[in-house]
Amino acid sequence: MFKGTSASAGIGIGKAVIVEETELKIKKDTITDVDAEKARFQRAVNQAMEETDALAKDLATRVGEKEAEILNGHLLLLSDPMLVGEIETSITGEMVNSEFAIETVCNTYADMFASMGDELMQQRATDMRDIKTRMQKILLGVSSVDIGALPAGSVIVARDLTPSMTAGINPANVTGIVTELGGKTSHSAILARALEIPAVVALDGIMSQITDGTELILDGSEGVVFADPDQAVREEYTAKRDVFLKEKKELEQYIGKPTVTKDGVTIELVANIGKPEDVDKVLQYDGEGVGLFRTEFLFMDRTSMPTEEEQFEAYRKVASAMNGKPVIIRTLDIGGDKEIPYMGLEKDENPFLGYRAIRFCLDRKDDVYRPQLRALLRASAFGNIRIMVPMVTCLEEYREAKALIEEIKKELDEASISYKKDIQVGIMVETAAASLMADVFAKEVDFFSIGTNDLTQYTMSVDRGNDKVSYLYSPLNPAVLRSIRHVIECGRKEGIMVGMCGEAASDPMLIPLLLAFGLNEFSMSASAILNARKLITGYSTQELKEVAEQAMTFVTVKEVEDYMKDFISRS
Amino acid sequence: MFKGTSASAGIGIGKAVIVEETELKIKKDTITDVDAEKARFQRAVNQAMEETDALAKDLATRVGEKEAEILNGHLLLLSDPMLVGEIETSITGEMVNSEFAIETVCNTYADMFASMGDELMQQRATDMRDIKTRMQKILLGVSSVDIGALPAGSVIVARDLTPSMTAGINPANVTGIVTELGGKTSHSAILARALEIPAVVALDGIMSQITDGTELILDGSEGVVFADPDQAVREEYTAKRDVFLKEKKELEQYIGKPTVTKDGVTIELVANIGKPEDVDKVLQYDGEGVGLFRTEFLFMDRTSMPTEEEQFEAYRKVASAMNGKPVIIRTLDIGGDKEIPYMGLEKDENPFLGYRAIRFCLDRKDDVYRPQLRALLRASAFGNIRIMVPMVTCLEEYREAKALIEEIKKELDEASISYKKDIQVGIMVETAAASLMADVFAKEVDFFSIGTNDLTQYTMSVDRGNDKVSYLYSPLNPAVLRSIRHVIECGRKEGIMVGMCGEAASDPMLIPLLLAFGLNEFSMSASAILNARKLITGYSTQELKEVAEQAMTFVTVKEVEDYMKDFISRS
Repeated sequence: MFKGTSASAGIGIGKAVIVEETELKIKKDTITDVDAEKARFQRAVNQAMEETDALAKDLATRVGEKEAEILNGHLLLLSDPMLVGEIETSITGEMVNSEFAIETVCNTYADMFASMGDELMQQRATDMRDIKTRMQKILLGVSSVDIGALPAGSVIVARDLTPSMTAGINPANVTGIVTELGGKTSHSAILARALEIPAVVALDGIMSQITDGTELILDGSEGVVFADPDQAVREEYTAKRDVFLKEKKELEQYIGKPTVTKDGVTIELVANIGKPEDVDKVLQYDGEGVGLFRTEFLFMDRTSMPTEEEQFEAYRKVASAMNGKPVIIRTLDIGGDKEIPYMGLEKDENPFLGYRAIRFCLDRKDDVYRPQLRALLRASAFGNIRIMVPMVTCLEEYREAKALIEEIKKELDEASISYKKDIQVGIMVETAAASLMADVFAKEVDFFSIGTNDLTQYTMSVDRGNDKVSYLYSPLNPAVLRSIRHVIECGRKEGIMVGMCGEAASDPMLIPLLLAFGLNEFSMSASAILNARKLITGYSTQELKEVAEQAMTFVTVKEVEDYMKDFISRS
Repeated sequence: MFKGTSASAGIGIGKAVIVEETELKIKKDTITDVDAEKARFQRAVNQAMEETDALAKDLATRVGEKEAEILNGHLLLLSDPMLVGEIETSITGEMVNSEFAIETVCNTYADMFASMGDELMQQRATDMRDIKTRMQKILLGVSSVDIGALPAGSVIVARDLTPSMTAGINPANVTGIVTELGGKTSHSAILARALEIPAVVALDGIMSQITDGTELILDGSEGVVFADPDQAVREEYTAKRDVFLKEKKELEQYIGKPTVTKDGVTIELVANIGKPEDVDKVLQYDGEGVGLFRTEFLFMDRTSMPTEEEQFEAYRKVASAMNGKPVIIRTLDIGGDKEIPYMGLEKDENPFLGYRAIRFCLDRKDDVYRPQLRALLRASAFGNIRIMVPMVTCLEEYREAKALIEEIKKELDEASISYKKDIQVGIMVETAAASLMADVFAKEVDFFSIGTNDLTQYTMSVDRGNDKVSYLYSPLNPAVLRSIRHVIECGRKEGIMVGMCGEAASDPMLIPLLLAFGLNEFSMSASAILNARKLITGYSTQELKEVAEQAMTFVTVKEVEDYMKDFISRS
C-alpha cells in the first residue's frame, strides 16, 4: 500500500499504464544559416501554438473553460515576446540550433520559477518545461505519448501529468491517475477533479516500484494506492466503489428540490465561483444562486488593469446566467501574497496582516475601486447582484465603501444609466475585529457572509498554508465556533441575512451546528451542493439546538470532533 | 519648522553643531609585501577593537549595560573570522592596500544588509559602515570628531549618529539630537532615551538647510524642530521645557508611595525588562516587581543555544535583585521574523501567523523548552518567579506546557534541587482565540497578562510594523477594548490576577478604562512607572466605571479617543 495525497475523490480499479515521457536528446549544433534557423524555430513555435490551441478547445468542450485555461497559459508563454526573443537572440548570437537554444533559455526560466518555492511558481516551472518539450518534439519529429488511445480500465501512473497530457485523457477509458509529483491544487489535480477521475498524487518513487500492467486500486478520497491487491482488498474496494457511485447517482434526485429543513426552515444553498464560466456547474448542480464570486481572476495573469467595460461584461454575464437568483460579488481581495506588478503591490513582511483587500481598494479608489464598483452597479441592472466588501475590520471602512457606492449611483443617475437601486451591500466577516463588533455592523450593513477560512486563520493566529502550524487550523475549534455563533446571533437579531462562504459551509460536521446557530445561507463549491441539500433536508433545526448546545460546552477541537462524529454516525 | 519622528522626549534648546564625518579618501594601491600589509591590517583591527571596547566600558558605566551592547555588536563584527578572512583574502589575492580591501568588503556587506529592508538589517548596515570607518581612520591616521568636547548647550545635527559617536556624548553639554536618518527604534534613538536627551530623527535633508551655530529648538515628544525661532516660539518652548523638567522632578515624590486608587484599590505597578541589567532601572523608578521579563536576549546574537546553567544565572540574578517582589518571566517568544540560524528557524511566509513562541517551544521540548523551564524552576528558589507562556491559542498548549513543568518538578524533587513548589504558571492573552476562551482558560491558569501589542495586531489583522496599514493599529479600537474588557472580567470572575504588559498599560487614555475594567497589574517600561502611579492614585475606580461605560458605547477609534481626551482634560 502506498500513501499519497488525495487529489480527486472516488475509487479507481484497473491496470497500471506507466506513462513515461521519452527523454529527448538535445545536441548542441553550430549553425551557419541564422535566418533559416530562425524561420525553423518560428515554425515550431507556430505549430506548438496550433496544437495547444486545438487541445485547449477540445478540453473546453469536454471538460470546461476553466480547465482549458491551463493550456491558454501555455499559449501565453509561447507568444511571450521576451521568451521567444531570448531564444532567437541565443540562436543568432551563439549560432546554435533551435533545440539547444530552447533547452537553455526555457531551463533557465523553469529553474528560476522552481526555486521560488511556492506552488504557483512550481506550476509555472512545469508549464515552461511542458512547452519546451512540445517545441523540441516538433523540431525533432518525435510524437507524443497518445494518452487518448489507452485501453479501457487504465490507471495512469506518471511522474507528473503535464497539462497537455491530462488534456488528452478520455475519462471513459481511464479509471484512475497516480503521480509521483503534484499537490492538492496542482493543475493535474484540478483537471482530474473536473474530469471526475479518482486521483492520488505525491507518491514519491512509485514508478520504480510498479510495472506496466500491475493491477492497481486507488482511493482518491483517502489518498491510498494498492498494487497487486489480495482478494480481500479487492472485494472491499469494489464494494466501496459501488457505494461511492451509487451515492453520487442518488444525489441527482436532489436536483430541483427545495432546501428546507424538516421543521420548515428554508435555507439558501448557493455556490462559490471564481470565473463567469463556472456558472455552468452552478446550474448543473442546481445552485440557488452565487454566494461568493471572487473577482481576482480579472486582475491576474495580465499586464494592465482590466477596464470598467471588461469587468462589467464579466459581472453581467454571471448576473444574466443566474437569471434573477442572488449573485454576491466580492470586491477585489488581493494583497502582498500575490505579485501583481502592474498594481505596484509589493510583498509584505506579513501579507495576511498587510496591505490588502478593502485596505488596498480604499487607498486606490480612482484607478482600482471606483471602476470596479461602477462596473458592479451597471451590471446590477441585469440580475440580482449584491456587493460584498472583504476583510473589513472597522466601521469606517464599510462606511467609506458605501459612500463611494452612493457617489457612483448619483453619477449613474445623472448619466441615465440603469442599475439596481436597492442593491444590497454587505461585508465578509473574517477578522476578529468584525466578529467582536458584529452587533454594531449588523445595524448598518445589508448582509453578513462569514469567511470561515480567514476567520479561523485570524482567530487562531495561524497561516493555514504553513505546514508547521496548520495543525492549529480548524473551524471546529471552540474559539472559532463561539465567534461564528456570535456573528450569526448578531445578524439574526437585526434581521439581516447571514451566510457562510468558507469551505466549512459544506462540512458535514459543521452543517448541523450552523443550522442550529441560525445560518441562512450556505455557499460552497458547486459539486458539494447536492450532498449539502441532502444533509440539510434531513435535519430539524429545533432538534439540532440541543446538539449544538452540548457541542459548545466542549473546550478542545478533539472533544467537539468526537462528539460531532458520534452524532453524525447516530443520525 | 521641520517635522520628523520623535525619538526621545523633552525639549532641547541650543545651538546647532553640525557633525559631519570627514569623507575619507580611499585610494587603491598595489602592494608588494603581502605579509607586511596583512600585519598592518591586523594591527588596525586590534586597535579598533581596543577603542570600541573602551567606549563600551565607558558607556556601560555612564548609561547602562544594555546600551553598551551596541558596541559589543561592533566587537563581534571586528572579530568575525569570515569578515576579517575576506578582507585578508582581498589583500593577498588582489595585492591591494588594507584601506581599499576594507572598503570593498565592508561595503558589499553593508549594501547587502541595507537591501534587506527591515530596520534590524538597516542597523547592521550602519554598524558595518561604522567599523569600516573606524578601521580606515586608524590606518589613515585621521582622528574622529570629538563629540565629548562640544560646548554646553549644543544640539547635535548629523546625518546619522553612529553608535560610536553617540557613546561619546556628554549629556551635560548636549541638549538635543537631530538626525536625517534613523527610526524610533534605531540604536541612536535608544541611546538618546537612555541618556535622557531630547531627540528627533528622520528629518530628511535638514543638514543642508541649517548651518553651524543656528539656534535650534526641538520637541522630542512631538518630533518637531524649529530653526532660528522667533521670540514667540522661543518663549513657548522655554515654558514647555520648564514644565517638562518640573513634572519630571515632581514625579520623584511618587517614589516609595503605594499604588492605591482614591477608593482604596491596590494596583501592582511593575516593569517590562529585556535583560538582567535592566533591574537597576526598575529599582531606580520604584517598580513593584517585574511584569514581563523577555527571555529572547539570551538566545540572540550567538551561535549556539544558551545552556541551562547560563539561563539559570540570568533568571536567578533578576529574582534575587527583586528580593521577593514578583518577577514574571515569559518563556521564549521567538519565530520566523528573527533569523536564528543555530535554531533552524526559517523565515515564514507570514511569520506573525507562523511557527513561533509556544508552538516552537512545544515542538522543541528536549533542546529548547525543557532546559528553559528547568532553569526557571531552579531560579525560582531565589525569588518570587512566575512562569508565563506566550501566544497561547488553545487549552492543549497550556496543558502541555504545564505537564512538562510538573514533570521537571518531579525530577528536581528526586535530585533534591529546591524550587518554588507553588510557582504560578500563567498565560499571555494576545490572540483572538485566547480572548474568546478566556472564561475557560481562567479556570485552569494561575494568571493572565494581556499582551496588548499582539492582541491589537491579531484582533485588527494588522502587522503594526507595516507602514501602509499601521493606521488601523490602535488599542483604543472598540473591538480591542471589548476583547480586553472581556478578558479582565473572565479573570476576575475566577479570582486570578489579570495584568497587562503591552505599551497600552502606560497610556494615559487607557489607564482610566483599565482601572474601571478591573485590571490588577500594570506592567510598563521602568521610566513610565512614576507617571502611571501619579495617574492611578488620582483616580477612583468607582467613578471611572461610568466613564468606561460611556466610552464603550462608541463604535470608532476616533469617538473613543475624543471622549477620553475630553475626560482627561477635565480631570
